[in-house]
Amino acid sequence: MNIRKLDEQKVLRDPVHEYVRIEYEVIWKLLDTPEFQRLRRIHQLGAAYMVYHGAEHSRFSHSVGVYEVTRRMINEIKELKEHLSEYEQVVALCAALLHDIGHGPFSHAFESVTQISHETMTIRIIMNGPGIRKLLDEVSPDLAADVCAVIDHTHPRTILSQMISSQIDADRMDYLLRDAYFTGVSYGAYDIERILRTFRIEDSQLVIKYSGMNAVEDYIMARYQMYWQVYYHPTSRAYEIMLFNIFKRIKDVYSEKAQLIQKNALFLVPFVSQSEVSLEDYLFLDDNSMIHAFKKLGLQEEDLILKDLSNRLLNRDIFKFVDNGSELYSEKVKELRELNYDIDYYLAEDSLTQEPYLPYRTKGQQIMILMSDGSVKELSEVSSIVSAIAGSQARRDSKLFFPKTEEL
Amino acid sequence: MNIRKLDEQKVLRDPVHEYVRIEYEVIWKLLDTPEFQRLRRIHQLGAAYMVYHGAEHSRFSHSVGVYEVTRRMINEIKELKEHLSEYEQVVALCAALLHDIGHGPFSHAFESVTQISHETMTIRIIMNGPGIRKLLDEVSPDLAADVCAVIDHTHPRTILSQMISSQIDADRMDYLLRDAYFTGVSYGAYDIERILRTFRIEDSQLVIKYSGMNAVEDYIMARYQMYWQVYYHPTSRAYEIMLFNIFKRIKDVYSEKAQLIQKNALFLVPFVSQSEVSLEDYLFLDDNSMIHAFKKLGLQEEDLILKDLSNRLLNRDIFKFVDNGSELYSEKVKELRELNYDIDYYLAEDSLTQEPYLPYRTKGQQIMILMSDGSVKELSEVSSIVSAIAGSQARRDSKLFFPKTEEL
Amino acid sequence: MNIRKLDEQKVLRDPVHEYVRIEYEVIWKLLDTPEFQRLRRIHQLGAAYMVYHGAEHSRFSHSVGVYEVTRRMINEIKELKEHLSEYEQVVALCAALLHDIGHGPFSHAFESVTQISHETMTIRIIMNGPGIRKLLDEVSPDLAADVCAVIDHTHPRTILSQMISSQIDADRMDYLLRDAYFTGVSYGAYDIERILRTFRIEDSQLVIKYSGMNAVEDYIMARYQMYWQVYYHPTSRAYEIMLFNIFKRIKDVYSEKAQLIQKNALFLVPFVSQSEVSLEDYLFLDDNSMIHAFKKLGLQEEDLILKDLSNRLLNRDIFKFVDNGSELYSEKVKELRELNYDIDYYLAEDSLTQEPYLPYRTKGQQIMILMSDGSVKELSEVSSIVSAIAGSQARRDSKLFFPKTEEL
Amino acid sequence: MNIRKLDEQKVLRDPVHEYVRIEYEVIWKLLDTPEFQRLRRIHQLGAAYMVYHGAEHSRFSHSVGVYEVTRRMINEIKELKEHLSEYEQVVALCAALLHDIGHGPFSHAFESVTQISHETMTIRIIMNGPGIRKLLDEVSPDLAADVCAVIDHTHPRTILSQMISSQIDADRMDYLLRDAYFTGVSYGAYDIERILRTFRIEDSQLVIKYSGMNAVEDYIMARYQMYWQVYYHPTSRAYEIMLFNIFKRIKDVYSEKAQLIQKNALFLVPFVSQSEVSLEDYLFLDDNSMIHAFKKLGLQEEDLILKDLSNRLLNRDIFKFVDNGSELYSEKVKELRELNYDIDYYLAEDSLTQEPYLPYRTKGQQIMILMSDGSVKELSEVSSIVSAIAGSQARRDSKLFFPKTEEL
Repeated sequence: MNIRKLDEQKVLRDPVHEYVRIEYEVIWKLLDTPEFQRLRRIHQLGAAYMVYHGAEHSRFSHSVGVYEVTRRMINEIKELKEHLSEYEQVVALCAALLHDIGHGPFSHAFESVTQISHETMTIRIIMNGPGIRKLLDEVSPDLAADVCAVIDHTHPRTILSQMISSQIDADRMDYLLRDAYFTGVSYGAYDIERILRTFRIEDSQLVIKYSGMNAVEDYIMARYQMYWQVYYHPTSRAYEIMLFNIFKRIKDVYSEKAQLIQKNALFLVPFVSQSEVSLEDYLFLDDNSMIHAFKKLGLQEEDLILKDLSNRLLNRDIFKFVDNGSELYSEKVKELRELNYDIDYYLAEDSLTQEPYLPYRTKGQQIMILMSDGSVKELSEVSSIVSAIAGSQARRDSKLFFPKTEEL
Repeated sequence: MNIRKLDEQKVLRDPVHEYVRIEYEVIWKLLDTPEFQRLRRIHQLGAAYMVYHGAEHSRFSHSVGVYEVTRRMINEIKELKEHLSEYEQVVALCAALLHDIGHGPFSHAFESVTQISHETMTIRIIMNGPGIRKLLDEVSPDLAADVCAVIDHTHPRTILSQMISSQIDADRMDYLLRDAYFTGVSYGAYDIERILRTFRIEDSQLVIKYSGMNAVEDYIMARYQMYWQVYYHPTSRAYEIMLFNIFKRIKDVYSEKAQLIQKNALFLVPFVSQSEVSLEDYLFLDDNSMIHAFKKLGLQEEDLILKDLSNRLLNRDIFKFVDNGSELYSEKVKELRELNYDIDYYLAEDSLTQEPYLPYRTKGQQIMILMSDGSVKELSEVSSIVSAIAGSQARRDSKLFFPKTEEL
Repeated sequence: MNIRKLDEQKVLRDPVHEYVRIEYEVIWKLLDTPEFQRLRRIHQLGAAYMVYHGAEHSRFSHSVGVYEVTRRMINEIKELKEHLSEYEQVVALCAALLHDIGHGPFSHAFESVTQISHETMTIRIIMNGPGIRKLLDEVSPDLAADVCAVIDHTHPRTILSQMISSQIDADRMDYLLRDAYFTGVSYGAYDIERILRTFRIEDSQLVIKYSGMNAVEDYIMARYQMYWQVYYHPTSRAYEIMLFNIFKRIKDVYSEKAQLIQKNALFLVPFVSQSEVSLEDYLFLDDNSMIHAFKKLGLQEEDLILKDLSNRLLNRDIFKFVDNGSELYSEKVKELRELNYDIDYYLAEDSLTQEPYLPYRTKGQQIMILMSDGSVKELSEVSSIVSAIAGSQARRDSKLFFPKTEEL
Repeated sequence: MNIRKLDEQKVLRDPVHEYVRIEYEVIWKLLDTPEFQRLRRIHQLGAAYMVYHGAEHSRFSHSVGVYEVTRRMINEIKELKEHLSEYEQVVALCAALLHDIGHGPFSHAFESVTQISHETMTIRIIMNGPGIRKLLDEVSPDLAADVCAVIDHTHPRTILSQMISSQIDADRMDYLLRDAYFTGVSYGAYDIERILRTFRIEDSQLVIKYSGMNAVEDYIMARYQMYWQVYYHPTSRAYEIMLFNIFKRIKDVYSEKAQLIQKNALFLVPFVSQSEVSLEDYLFLDDNSMIHAFKKLGLQEEDLILKDLSNRLLNRDIFKFVDNGSELYSEKVKELRELNYDIDYYLAEDSLTQEPYLPYRTKGQQIMILMSDGSVKELSEVSSIVSAIAGSQARRDSKLFFPKTEEL
């Protein structure tokens, strides 16, 4: 094993955490791999910046943020620092930094069409990425596999996965603050200082001291609010649907209009043809190439659906939406057909449910509260407010999306 | 004339100003033109996000911010509201929103190579843009020309230009706050509330009441600090130089390697060949297409300089820099030549000077202070601190940029 | 009627609202009355600054804040501005400014012992205060009575009372933000901009547009959190109990030790003797005189209980607390008696219940949501999260307070 | 020596530093001494809260802040932590916490009249205070003397004094941030994170790395602005003058009206008579007793000057001010005399000069910059902006203060 510290701590200025502090050489070098730099070219919130114009931040910014929260957890939770070996600390830090490395552009829509999951790609990139693997191997031949195990929840030290991915983890702790900061929506703010202060270790798991429960309640509410204000904003969902329909259309027409796609979006060919997708193909993907392709598709005349959808996307001629109702769908089908819209690409139903807090069954996923008598209880058993919320009817939102027909 | 207000004020959530408030229909519609939406695809600070990873905000975000500051000036400076006709107010608001519409991707480097100025393009786009011109004409046949006159400082009502572009204007007032917010560098913050409160009109010009002088001093210092901390950051300048060299190389090789450019960056052809640049060609330009092209150039093998510089740019293998000195340049030339670097693309000198405040001669450009006796004085006559700064030696920074040679 | 505006808006710099803006002469003059200046000498949160050392702000600071929120409601809720006559606006502004004018020092404890309610004193001071009444009369002979009617909820225009005192009013909107700011507890923050933006008038009552519901949910949670983190903090309650016991002791001993009280706390005599309390007596009361008296009582030797309790209060030798339990009380009685403590002054039970949101019956008190179809519904009918909370078990906290006995 | 750490770090929530973290038992116990608790009863900024109503914070709040900045210096400046023994660290922390312990109420005015300096009292209280001395002795018999030596700049390890009191020290670093926070004046903000990051040790002195120079420039400007915006605000100075005149009048009349003073302000007798001032007399002093006395003096009729000045002070009937001029003084004397004002108490000249930065001669007082070549230079040699300021004419403000005569 060869864990090297930098001679002097390096820092990145970060608007959310003030500084991101780097102590290990491997982390510093991982930042400058092509795979990691690619994250600068993928928006953290997909097309949400079309709704909240400030939300132009990238997955790079979030990834270094998750690293920093993990670093603070290790350094500020005394019991955690003592509980983990230095190697385990490095595993956690690398996993934090790399947990989103497999994301592609507009992941949600793109993955739905191509059936490629970013989780799978994350593992592939860590194990085989041109820059990353070598750096991890230099520390230890086990590091790449250990990092992947933490990310896909198969690592025997479940606390490591819990740090990066659970109900209250470095990932969520960063993105709530970050997305709130960049959108300008204040709801995502919560008291990260207090949460970090009240983490303890019990039975090899992270728990929160009872005195931190109010901060956790606030965090649960922040999460709930960010979902409805930002992540599930209907205009964002309209973009997702338009993106999905463009990708679907590209896939659908590829067999008969291969040349059209090759000419305007060559890099997408591996994803819509039957061919194997290489790591290189995947790593080429980013928002820039996608948008470049949409611009070109918006200028061609060979496929008018692709042309129209691309231009709508670029120029903010977004699908409208109404609350879905019993007969609405068939009415809309009729109306759009009369206007010669292809409803495969111009009409969509979308339903969402969000439960502010689910007392998940899986150990390591729940938020556990350390009581003053030393016992440990699941959050909703202790917090009357979380209990009320957990037992309440989940908020459901079902909408129908379609173009403004009066304009055609 | 046909100035229409929206039935209800519309708002955009903005992290800097909380809300951007839209009252006029023409403003609301301008936002959704393809020309204006294109600004979402151009980073406000060029490649500075490679240094400050939070600085991923676009010219769209800044442009709506300048609009909002102008709107606040009109609404909160009582004398200004009374001084301007409603039509003049709309002229000012449109000019604020559109003043950067002509910017292209990585403007500084790109303009240096192509000799196309974004100022010229701003006028062309306002006068002939596919979406913008029609909207302006609907309000008044003079509006487009009046907006351009404000932007290029030829409008007879100099106060309008002063609002958008002077030593203390809506443009700077927004970008200092915005760039500080997104970079996370606190220096750019200053007290915009107080400045807005202390603006007055004297002799048809904006002046600042003496009681606001401290806020103005703070603003001058914020500007000074942002220049050295962000805008002139040597790593940002290294990026600028690399970008310049890539564009230069593309231009230089076009005559002999036209196909290489056509294949990898077709949209750049009009800019490097002798052909005329159409408005359509220009409006296609954005960061996305540029970066897509750099990625493709990074994969080809026909021109190794373009390949190398593109990959350096994408993967953060940035030029180093040292303070320039008398014999340093010729030493570096020798060293790089021995290592087979083409010094036309791998060595650059860059000098900068920034004076925190120049008591410019031009009326309407200076910051004027309204004294309690009713007289008006230029800022540096009144503020001992600004006077000290204005009279001080300008800070100069001359650097030499080159690749890390030890790595080749 | 004689409503006069100031020639120029005056402002007070305020850390919570940036500026408090004064437009009416009567408001400006009310600020400088002795009755209103006295509020500077009464802490907003009683003894809570002994727990949160930043919470040293006064009722003056809060009162101008409530005024400012009311002013913003009038100026930013277009429908409200149109709904109210200018006189009604002035009534609301005066009521906002003066609603806490009757508070005395350490109100909670002092009122419990003396049976003087601050609500009654507010009305008395507005009707008969040496400075205030005359200023109100100058505007209109009805103004004083109208302001009182708004404050005690007897005004026929119930919307005026609703603005100042209801489930979502200027009073709470200011104190949550202000107390959060000064304590440093972030939980009290919520999105006041959005709430102000989404207020509407329906059936002569303030309601919130459905699009503001998330902001209201967040406000409800902020309130809940501030109660448990700050207002009901057990150490604050220990102070309240010690204060209550000192006041009680002063009253209890007055008949036999009148001279002791006259010598050390002459100004309290009217409140503990049978004599009538004059307005002058009451207006002399403030935290300064109280603390001066505690210091003197802490130095005398005539009544050792008063000496001891006063010194404990000043020097932070606070009562301890434990969760109350079935046999605990009698155990503590025994233990304290053995140590010669008088349990009338050294042992106390205190129970609290806080329900995050009660869908009160009274019209004008509930938070009503304006649905997109124009109907109006009570908040908990619409918000699943508030409904869950409203239906949940109220959080109850019962504690026993007593001195650290090991030290005697 | 007996340096004991607490079992678990304790924290105070602080709005400026989020948390004040206590690690040593002696610090924790010092907080609860009567001498230190007394600081809660003295406003940090004297009467400035009459101008900026938010500025109601106490010297307690500032003192724990200076402690926290010192703690951060020790913990975050690696070289400093290694440079100091643990005992020296404790000396510095105690000195930081206690450096203002000798302040009395409205120090500036009170000291001018009584000729008692708070610096002298600080030393007396540390050496002889009823609670403090014993706690310090428990750690080491030298601790009290060492803490005093650091505070009065006689300690041989000059770096310790430099940490607490120099051009860039924990005292100023806290009060600029704190006073800015509570007044709501944003000018006092500067980048404390960066300054802490760039401190280094050279030749046993604290210096700032060149890369932190911009942050230091910003700090110098923040200081300059806070002086003119807050500390030297003319209305604050008017209060100081009124306070001075009240104290002066009390002293002047004591010989003939001893009973008046004894009856209304007994605790002041030792300070205005020839008697010796005991530590107990001094520690009784605080804002509360002063204001209680002013209220009583405002009600009596025996000395109308004291009555009038006290009521003016309490009820914000403040002296006016004009810029001083050649003949103004004698004119005002004449005018006031005609109106029967005693000019000894109703007219005052006050001149101020503030230089944003003086390159002091004394080593350890200057701000030294560590250049990249390892040399160390005084700030104004390196920073063109500070050099400009240091060489500029100092800003001078001379004013005449007097009551609004039209009202008598």
